[in-house]
Amino acid sequence: MENKKQATEIGIYPGTFDPVTYGHIDIIKRALKIFSKVIIAISDNPEKKPLFSMEERIEMLKESFKGLDVEVEYFTGLLVDYAKKKNCKLIIRSMRAVSDFDYEFQMASVNRDLDGDIETVFLMTDTKYLYLHSGLVKEIAQREGKLDSMVSENVSKKLREKYKL
Amino acid sequence: MENKKQATEIGIYPGTFDPVTYGHIDIIKRALKIFSKVIIAISDNPEKKPLFSMEERIEMLKESFKGLDVEVEYFTGLLVDYAKKKNCKLIIRSMRAVSDFDYEFQMASVNRDLDGDIETVFLMTDTKYLYLHSGLVKEIAQREGKLDSMVSENVSKKLREKYKL
Amino acid sequence: MENKKQATEIGIYPGTFDPVTYGHIDIIKRALKIFSKVIIAISDNPEKKPLFSMEERIEMLKESFKGLDVEVEYFTGLLVDYAKKKNCKLIIRSMRAVSDFDYEFQMASVNRDLDGDIETVFLMTDTKYLYLHSGLVKEIAQREGKLDSMVSENVSKKLREKYKL
Amino acid sequence: MENKKQATEIGIYPGTFDPVTYGHIDIIKRALKIFSKVIIAISDNPEKKPLFSMEERIEMLKESFKGLDVEVEYFTGLLVDYAKKKNCKLIIRSMRAVSDFDYEFQMASVNRDLDGDIETVFLMTDTKYLYLHSGLVKEIAQREGKLDSMVSENVSKKLREKYKL
Amino acid sequence: MENKKQATEIGIYPGTFDPVTYGHIDIIKRALKIFSKVIIAISDNPEKKPLFSMEERIEMLKESFKGLDVEVEYFTGLLVDYAKKKNCKLIIRSMRAVSDFDYEFQMASVNRDLDGDIETVFLMTDTKYLYLHSGLVKEIAQREGKLDSMVSENVSKKLREKYKL
Amino acid sequence: MENKKQATEIGIYPGTFDPVTYGHIDIIKRALKIFSKVIIAISDNPEKKPLFSMEERIEMLKESFKGLDVEVEYFTGLLVDYAKKKNCKLIIRSMRAVSDFDYEFQMASVNRDLDGDIETVFLMTDTKYLYLHSGLVKEIAQREGKLDSMVSENVSKKLREKYKL
Repeated sequence: MENKKQATEIGIYPGTFDPVTYGHIDIIKRALKIFSKVIIAISDNPEKKPLFSMEERIEMLKESFKGLDVEVEYFTGLLVDYAKKKNCKLIIRSMRAVSDFDYEFQMASVNRDLDGDIETVFLMTDTKYLYLHSGLVKEIAQREGKLDSMVSENVSKKLREKYKL
Repeated sequence: MENKKQATEIGIYPGTFDPVTYGHIDIIKRALKIFSKVIIAISDNPEKKPLFSMEERIEMLKESFKGLDVEVEYFTGLLVDYAKKKNCKLIIRSMRAVSDFDYEFQMASVNRDLDGDIETVFLMTDTKYLYLHSGLVKEIAQREGKLDSMVSENVSKKLREKYKL
Repeated sequence: MENKKQATEIGIYPGTFDPVTYGHIDIIKRALKIFSKVIIAISDNPEKKPLFSMEERIEMLKESFKGLDVEVEYFTGLLVDYAKKKNCKLIIRSMRAVSDFDYEFQMASVNRDLDGDIETVFLMTDTKYLYLHSGLVKEIAQREGKLDSMVSENVSKKLREKYKL
Repeated sequence: MENKKQATEIGIYPGTFDPVTYGHIDIIKRALKIFSKVIIAISDNPEKKPLFSMEERIEMLKESFKGLDVEVEYFTGLLVDYAKKKNCKLIIRSMRAVSDFDYEFQMASVNRDLDGDIETVFLMTDTKYLYLHSGLVKEIAQREGKLDSMVSENVSKKLREKYKL
Repeated sequence: MENKKQATEIGIYPGTFDPVTYGHIDIIKRALKIFSKVIIAISDNPEKKPLFSMEERIEMLKESFKGLDVEVEYFTGLLVDYAKKKNCKLIIRSMRAVSDFDYEFQMASVNRDLDGDIETVFLMTDTKYLYLHSGLVKEIAQREGKLDSMVSENVSKKLREKYKL
Repeated sequence: MENKKQATEIGIYPGTFDPVTYGHIDIIKRALKIFSKVIIAISDNPEKKPLFSMEERIEMLKESFKGLDVEVEYFTGLLVDYAKKKNCKLIIRSMRAVSDFDYEFQMASVNRDLDGDIETVFLMTDTKYLYLHSGLVKEIAQREGKLDSMVSENVSKKLREKYKL
């Protein structure tokens, strides 16, 4: 029993984090009310052609979670295989809008099919981040809009550098 | 810190449970992978005119969770006030279909507005229970359909008694 | 094989039809492109407190489908039991808007659970009837709006009589 | 031309307003950026069994919009007939969540069918009111929750009186 | 006050218009019931690789709105910055189907975050254009389908030229 | 009349089938309860850059439906033109999740606009295939996950060859 609880104390929060937004940070802070530690698992999918390199994404994430029980890693292959390797069965996902719903349910369902021990836990962002996601941040950065309610100062600076603004 | 984790080990699963279905049982078993204990909190809302009395619902729930770390109680008033009284900050909800989505988000959002410490954790039922809910079970019972993939033998018997079948 | 095809030539279109609208008529005409005969099966659910009696609903439906291969009946109990009695395995349903979706999927899924031979076939109304349903027709009738794009002259007359307009 | 613009300067905001919430107030303030005047048209539908009488609802609404170009009235019959009587062609509606979507589209579509001159204008509430509606306010009032982020002090007091809290 | 109303008389209708469809034309005609003038603001986003050049799109739009109070322009950068430059606070958007909903709400919400003065006004197309959008028109043109219920003769001709049909 | 029924005995199931999954097979088996024969019509759209060549897709489909009244073909141009050429008026589509809904309704609506004789029939997959689609299968194959609940052994082998696993 004690053993089972040890195993469940860690949650994995997978994503692309290209770049990390205040929405991600909000979810992770909420997750830390439930889990003793959160592993941020960056999916390494070169086909998605991320704006930021893996190193840049790791650095921005680490900077955002200084002092918290958060570990930042990347993984290749299936999330369920990575989770098993980390001896962790709980996936954390955020659900914001209805358009996320089908995709998230599909992924949770498939992960459960691939590994029956895996459970997905959905958390809800603060309403003010309901429509915030990395793609939007990049679009606004490119069009030279202000980003201070969306990403940290550090991320905002890196976005301006990327787009040479 | 150790203290914080004690507080988070209990989850409250609120509902009407009129009657408990295999869908509820599935969610609670999944919740027990995350929480050391689940409190099933039956909402006492006489306006909803439940088919089963509070005593019957408590009895059916207790019978369903024998041997598990599950406590069955009822509450009046606001869920967030009940949660505070139980010294518990985590609400467990299941999300099945898109039609649940808006309602569940509304409730999670309102509960957070009423008490900023409250967090709602959404779990996903087994796909085979995706469309199962208590109202449907009652409708099928009334029309004399078979219920054995939906509720336990005990609940099925009680439904037949209610509808004098 | 020939035998199998005989069995599939009939489709059952269940509903409350309180009253029949141009949307229902549109679906049945489309269904007759697929099925050699359609049985309109009126669900006898007194709890729903229909505006029109079963006799009135049958009469209005029969009047709407004069000359077509359409049979009008009512049923009590489960639809799947009625379908079996009629030796028919195909249920016809219309899907109009997203809000129908979850309910329709739930019913199709439950009917399949109750009887694995049952198949539900969804047809799409003409876009101009996308938002038309019996409840709306009654609300407009009560508020003395014109109904000629929604129901037949006969049904319109009966609605005015009911509401003593 | 000048004539046409006169006619379009007034918008009708229909609803039950049982009672008026900060969400309604938010929409009307936004509407006043577009329309020179807003007519709040309370639908008189006794079947809905409102908590507050028509007089109480009118009083609460008037109190909320003191000093603004807002008129408060009630109507019976069809909204499109009321709009014609007021010589006004523009209906204002708020859209909050996906579950509103189908209903709102249905109503806008039906109103257009009933009167081709009628146009419905949808506005979006502040994200913080996304899940707020009168039914929720009444439920929370009944369960003795705090209402100060949802309705005005005056409305809150009247709700406590109704529920004898 | 008189001043405020002058400012609100113009609405901006942003989009890609690649190419303009009867759905766009329907929305603009409806918008002209509310606004004295509509500025069609073509978003200049080279990453989207439009089929038609900016010049072609402007020409097709101008041809479609001859004689109406419609101005056609393009913009780069953020829509809210363009709106401010035009001294206009009202954005016009069409909402057709549920899949538009989340995206449109996201954009309206973000634009409001970026500039608190901006208001988005949603109008509803004629039901017959509910599923019409430029991408669909291009796909049908490419597969040599008839386009006369979707775009004007001029646009149809230009599409055939592009695809060398 | 007899003639009409002959014409309606064949249904066309269009798609990309890149590759065929157990979800497709489930739908076709259900379709064969309604139609005497199903024509699988592979859409030849080079822009979609399929993983499998047309020949490979045809071979995998034929292998999956050995012994059933299923014909496998490909088509270019519009589906409605292909259907007319095949003297067939009934299109079979599967509807799984809400995110499919708008797209499917759009296509059914457009096809009906392009040819008023065409009718689309929606069938529902087994709940266990609710979230299964070819794109997901390819993603899991690429990440070396097991595919045996998703595609046949033959398709699974071909996927491993493609990704050189």
